[in-house]
Amino acid sequence: MTETLITSPGREVRIGFDRPFVIIGERINPTGRKILAEEMARGDYSRVEADAIAQVEAGAQMLDVNAGVPLADEPAMLADIVKLVQSITDAPLSIDSSIVAALESGLAVYQGKALVNSVTGEEERLETVLPLVKRHGAAVVAISNDETGISEDPDVRFDVAKKIVERAADYGIPREDVVVDPLVMPIGAINSAGRQVMHIVRRLREELKVNTTCGASNISFGLPNRNGINSAFLTMAIGAGMTSAITSPLHPEVLQAALGADVMMGHDPDCANWLRKYREPAPGAGRERRGRRRRGA
Amino acid sequence: MTETLITSPGREVRIGFDRPFVIIGERINPTGRKILAEEMARGDYSRVEADAIAQVEAGAQMLDVNAGVPLADEPAMLADIVKLVQSITDAPLSIDSSIVAALESGLAVYQGKALVNSVTGEEERLETVLPLVKRHGAAVVAISNDETGISEDPDVRFDVAKKIVERAADYGIPREDVVVDPLVMPIGAINSAGRQVMHIVRRLREELKVNTTCGASNISFGLPNRNGINSAFLTMAIGAGMTSAITSPLHPEVLQAALGADVMMGHDPDCANWLRKYREPAPGAGRERRGRRRRGA
Repeated sequence: MTETLITSPGREVRIGFDRPFVIIGERINPTGRKILAEEMARGDYSRVEADAIAQVEAGAQMLDVNAGVPLADEPAMLADIVKLVQSITDAPLSIDSSIVAALESGLAVYQGKALVNSVTGEEERLETVLPLVKRHGAAVVAISNDETGISEDPDVRFDVAKKIVERAADYGIPREDVVVDPLVMPIGAINSAGRQVMHIVRRLREELKVNTTCGASNISFGLPNRNGINSAFLTMAIGAGMTSAITSPLHPEVLQAALGADVMMGHDPDCANWLRKYREPAPGAGRERRGRRRRGA
Repeated sequence: MTETLITSPGREVRIGFDRPFVIIGERINPTGRKILAEEMARGDYSRVEADAIAQVEAGAQMLDVNAGVPLADEPAMLADIVKLVQSITDAPLSIDSSIVAALESGLAVYQGKALVNSVTGEEERLETVLPLVKRHGAAVVAISNDETGISEDPDVRFDVAKKIVERAADYGIPREDVVVDPLVMPIGAINSAGRQVMHIVRRLREELKVNTTCGASNISFGLPNRNGINSAFLTMAIGAGMTSAITSPLHPEVLQAALGADVMMGHDPDCANWLRKYREPAPGAGRERRGRRRRGA
């Protein structure tokens, strides 16, 4: 029963096979968010603060933080943001950068056990990121691509993930501290993208016994009603064994999909979280009841 | 690759492993619908007509018809309703009754190959319903309970289903004409109800190689935000291999769950059905795009 522990001074989050699904809030990321990128570039982090608070209030158990602003000093900025976000919320963080120096400066100021996002199967990345993860006692997201790119064959992606898990072990990082991202492709372009993820997630869970995460919103790229597609994807991926995702809890449909999937998996005993979220305000006077009376005519 | 063919004079529906999920509209059923029951009792079928048309327009490929009005002449009423519904829509029907004489009179007037809903594993039911199904060349819903009731052990329910499939074969009914209902329990009362269904559906598909259906709305009995639970259930059940359900396409969330699950399973090539349903009216001016701009600030 694999569990990945991520901590802040005030909170522990456990990603695990028999636990509620963990939503890692995706919003603190300037990629594709022009106004946020401009604000961050001039040192205005007010939107970062607002996004941190809003995502935690909406139901994110962890937050991803990324400071990939073009031409900025990303290591310095990521450290600033890690400190800022930790000063206003106790959600543990996923420290997200493609620049190793930025991961390093983020880890240097992080209080607790962080999730490092990410390492790939590329030799150069393995050799630089894994020692850093080990030195800080962190956990790491392992993305299942390597020098040859992203295979459309999920079994090849599984093999890349296996290589990363084995290499991590060589560096003294246990498998429960490697959270594999099977890579989610846009299903509007690749019709089998959903089946690919279900297949690799099942193998990762049953054979490699590792936790999983993904950038869930990629699945709906280019399609209308993206939250509908994202919800279907999350629900089905959780059914296949996915244990966390980097996504936005600010979309009510996405949050509902995660909470509903927890109920289905038996990970919400007595439906307590579901009831807390959706129970009607006054007994006998709520929305659903009235709706049912109208429909039941 | 099992396919169950159900027909009307104007339409063929195929329930199958590699086909889009089939929604069998549940609304034409007086159980728990007091006004409808009263209208039907006095021969007013206007709501039956409206429900038939609305469900087909909303996306039901088939319709379930049930005339279980207390103290009524159910065989005569079911025949009337079958004729009425077939006169206004070409959706093939699931003829639904717990009274064998009503199934018989419904089948007698049905044009096409119907789905008979249902037979159980009880000896007396097997011996009366299966010959009727064979005589009419129909398909049948096999409910996985028997004289001992409904087991909470999904493997026992699987064994009951296996017995019905074997007995059907003895009567000359091929396995592709038996659609198994694994029985969906309220998850608010039985925490493992979701996992039970996923487990039995996988076994039914992989070992018994039969199609599956269920009364999907049972899962959410007693819980708030029922459509949210129903959507999570349908999506995850389809991921496990469920191929049809008796449910209401009039709830947009339920329909969206089925269409989204089809996309995920690769059963909606090029996302054609999804695009038809959710594409924005004018390029560049739709809801989702504007929503994203606001959120993407």
